[in-house]
Amino acid sequence: MKLVVAVVQDKDSNNLSNALVNANYKATKLASTGGFLKAGNSTFMIGTEDDQVDDVLDIIKANCQSRDQLVAPISPMGGNADSYIPYPVNVKVGGATVFVLPVDQFERF
Amino acid sequence: MKLVVAVVQDKDSNNLSNALVNANYKATKLASTGGFLKAGNSTFMIGTEDDQVDDVLDIIKANCQSRDQLVAPISPMGGNADSYIPYPVNVKVGGATVFVLPVDQFERF
Amino acid sequence: MKLVVAVVQDKDSNNLSNALVNANYKATKLASTGGFLKAGNSTFMIGTEDDQVDDVLDIIKANCQSRDQLVAPISPMGGNADSYIPYPVNVKVGGATVFVLPVDQFERF
Ligand code: NI
Ligand code: NI
Ligand code: NI
Repeated sequence: MKLVVAVVQDKDSNNLSNALVNANYKATKLASTGGFLKAGNSTFMIGTEDDQVDDVLDIIKANCQSRDQLVAPISPMGGNADSYIPYPVNVKVGGATVFVLPVDQFERF
Repeated sequence: MKLVVAVVQDKDSNNLSNALVNANYKATKLASTGGFLKAGNSTFMIGTEDDQVDDVLDIIKANCQSRDQLVAPISPMGGNADSYIPYPVNVKVGGATVFVLPVDQFERF
Repeated sequence: MKLVVAVVQDKDSNNLSNALVNANYKATKLASTGGFLKAGNSTFMIGTEDDQVDDVLDIIKANCQSRDQLVAPISPMGGNADSYIPYPVNVKVGGATVFVLPVDQFERF
């Protein structure tokens, strides 16, 4: 038994939840902030058999991997036009930090 | 030293807190949602000596074990009387998912 | 790789966050309540190399160690003057409870 602890961005949180449920994994989501990832984030705890860890990691990677996103520029309100970029820009979004912890004992009551 | 991580239903959370305090265990409660248990839940972290793990598990079981609860039917408002069940029904409540994690080092400052 | 889990008082939480960032450690903060420490608290998860654990523990100790704080008495409103203490008193504040957990596998996506 392992406990997979994954910190992911809020924007990927729903997709990851759904993908885990569809693959029949049970996860608990903890409210978390800052740190590993700059944007708002969530921490998932997923209990898995040893031979399912790779599958769980694949699901996290598929739903949360760091990637570029094209963001349309926002027109500056009330001046400061100097900093206005008049074309879409690539921004890094997503990403996951994952710890696989050993479990000495697992119980369900 | 072990770190006991227990996900329990919100409705059992206060009873578990009180029982742990009475038995002189120190616990931290994390806000959590969904996953292991369908209803709203809380995640307890309890640091214990190795020889106290069984006692802590007994306390969690005594306060959170999955059980049937007789729920009185709610009278349907504004029709849909077809789905009305005119007698109390058994509903599963409670339950706990517990991971006992090894601890390499423990410090209090 | 280790996962350092530290429960600290809310009042020390910002200082600890800043000190960890300044030392280039990445931490995630979980909302937590009660238990190990009486006042409101926060739980930090910090992933570190094995040989950085001592440094992280030093940072936690420097920012969160239990200490005395001189608290000015609050003038009683509307009576109960019997319990009024007309001089500053020492109150214990701060403190940290820290678990260093072994990590089987660490991934960033
Ligand atoms: Ni195992
Ligand atoms: Ni031990
Ligand atoms: Ni290691």
